[in-house]
Amino acid sequence: METPFVRIDVDVLARNIDRMAAAVRERGLALRPHVKTHKIPRIARMQLDAGAVGLTVATIGEAEVFVAEGATDVFIAYPLWLTPDRAARLERLVRSARVSFGVDSVESATHAARTLGAAASRLEVLVEVDSGHHRSGAAPEDAASVAEAARAGGLRVAGVFTFPGHSYAPGAPEQAALQEREALRTAAAGLEAAGFVVERRSGGSTPSVLATAADGATEVRPGVYVFGDAQQLALGRCDPDDIALTVVATVVSRHPGPDGATHLVLDAGSKVLGSDRPAWTPGFGCIAGRPGAVIVALSEHHATVSWPADEPAPARGSLLDVIPNHVCLVLNLVDEVVAVTASGSERWPVAARGKNS
Amino acid sequence: METPFVRIDVDVLARNIDRMAAAVRERGLALRPHVKTHKIPRIARMQLDAGAVGLTVATIGEAEVFVAEGATDVFIAYPLWLTPDRAARLERLVRSARVSFGVDSVESATHAARTLGAAASRLEVLVEVDSGHHRSGAAPEDAASVAEAARAGGLRVAGVFTFPGHSYAPGAPEQAALQEREALRTAAAGLEAAGFVVERRSGGSTPSVLATAADGATEVRPGVYVFGDAQQLALGRCDPDDIALTVVATVVSRHPGPDGATHLVLDAGSKVLGSDRPAWTPGFGCIAGRPGAVIVALSEHHATVSWPADEPAPARGSLLDVIPNHVCLVLNLVDEVVAVTASGSERWPVAARGKNS
Repeated sequence: METPFVRIDVDVLARNIDRMAAAVRERGLALRPHVKTHKIPRIARMQLDAGAVGLTVATIGEAEVFVAEGATDVFIAYPLWLTPDRAARLERLVRSARVSFGVDSVESATHAARTLGAAASRLEVLVEVDSGHHRSGAAPEDAASVAEAARAGGLRVAGVFTFPGHSYAPGAPEQAALQEREALRTAAAGLEAAGFVVERRSGGSTPSVLATAADGATEVRPGVYVFGDAQQLALGRCDPDDIALTVVATVVSRHPGPDGATHLVLDAGSKVLGSDRPAWTPGFGCIAGRPGAVIVALSEHHATVSWPADEPAPARGSLLDVIPNHVCLVLNLVDEVVAVTASGSERWPVAARGKNS
Repeated sequence: METPFVRIDVDVLARNIDRMAAAVRERGLALRPHVKTHKIPRIARMQLDAGAVGLTVATIGEAEVFVAEGATDVFIAYPLWLTPDRAARLERLVRSARVSFGVDSVESATHAARTLGAAASRLEVLVEVDSGHHRSGAAPEDAASVAEAARAGGLRVAGVFTFPGHSYAPGAPEQAALQEREALRTAAAGLEAAGFVVERRSGGSTPSVLATAADGATEVRPGVYVFGDAQQLALGRCDPDDIALTVVATVVSRHPGPDGATHLVLDAGSKVLGSDRPAWTPGFGCIAGRPGAVIVALSEHHATVSWPADEPAPARGSLLDVIPNHVCLVLNLVDEVVAVTASGSERWPVAARGKNS
């Protein structure tokens, strides 16, 4: 394949999948990995074979892709606002799989139930609560009233969930995991007091999952752990050897940069790397095997790399492996990846690319 | 279509295309619009019908799409590093169209000529020079030696080009246009002294194009002007009425935010809006018709909007039009758009989506 292309090391991928499966099992939790990270049915199959109880997706469109490929239990971890079209799609999905989705207000629960009509009883909902990320999610103490609205409309309430997205900062995962625990316990207690059986308390992100306490969550939904990325490296949540995905790029230009560094230009830009760039990452991505090199500027088809002055800079035409900042964006930008094993390589289609709705 | 989806107002689009064509014509310049912005052959056709002399693309893959749809003159404004496969693709392209591409070093020019072999004489190159953006491009005074290397290898040298990308900052476009002028003049003078006929001096970005002097450039390559976006609004380079593209999103959640504002959550995140966020834009995007509302946080499927305290916030289920920060990223994230006119709407495929190589 011509650069830029996405390369997956299947052995590292398999090790990441097995390691997380074992770590989550040891903690007495169920693993329901978020497949928005990879969007590839083949990888979901590896996760299920390693013991995942089901899949997490972000959209109905992603659910449709994975159910068509054989998934039998999908959780759309998103506060859906149902339209008649979305309700019809959910009704079709639930003929082939167990399907649950999120509600985070009395209004959205009531609206979902009304829009689904008779199909409501075949779908499960989990009440989303806010554990400190302040994105979507009801206050934990309001979860019971949301659950009651869902039940009144005929939906089956399976439990509560939260996303501790504020775990994405240095030093933050442990505190976020504690807040997640409190939010899930408060919400679940509210539901139980209102007569619900809380089957699932769902939490977990890649940064916080290993700090998850089993008296908070019953299941966790990490996604990025399959590949790792420059954000996880910066958070200390994976090692360079754990990186299973890189974007292979060609050095197309080079010039003297400031401070004696050489500046290289790679043919991988924001249209394949994504442009997420938290303040706590060193740049717009890293170079595998070259910890001193950093992507200091990114445009659509150019990554400018500052190369350490004390290392010989690669020549034009060299191929480099870029570790993207946020790997979930990368898989949404390519139609296929090159999956490499010791015995050869093959192309895997990114079947759920672009399934935003 | 279900949200999030991309909506194009065809009347505004046509007005933007005509206005830029007229402004560039008045300045005595040729217009060669960059179609990486839209990736839609139908829109390229509108630009050519309005008088564009040809198209600019970023990759061979984009060139292949537009030539297959009838374009007869494409400029790949990128310092390509040719492989045998890329050379074969260029050779196929040049059977159907006039094709030019960029070189920015003696080494890449020599390598391109050698890799193309006998086909070199059918392809044109322009020498890329750096006018202050410090990305790719030779120093203007080195352009002649690059051109000589290209000529020695049998390539036809058509001229010089630059991208004044440092025009993307408040107050910067005029100064960037001056630097562009100087860089193009210096480079062209060098080529002329070495015996080249400089047919094309190519410059221009949407922020700087109207400051381009005809004694610097002969042609300009703006891209974003067809749609406008939140960056161009922040730079004062378009008005709210000029915005031709929005991402239609649903309000899925709302909560009290800090400072009395209501926080809304929309179902459009970085996987459809892109996550470019220069420090000089107010947020991760704006809401059409609501200048006080700003996207304060963005994740893959959530945009958090801070709604002005003195305006009633939309209810859950409402549709809002999001103006993305950088529209070029959006078109690379969807397979089709909804094109709306006074008489109805139709779907246009984004034929060059994902053509990164």
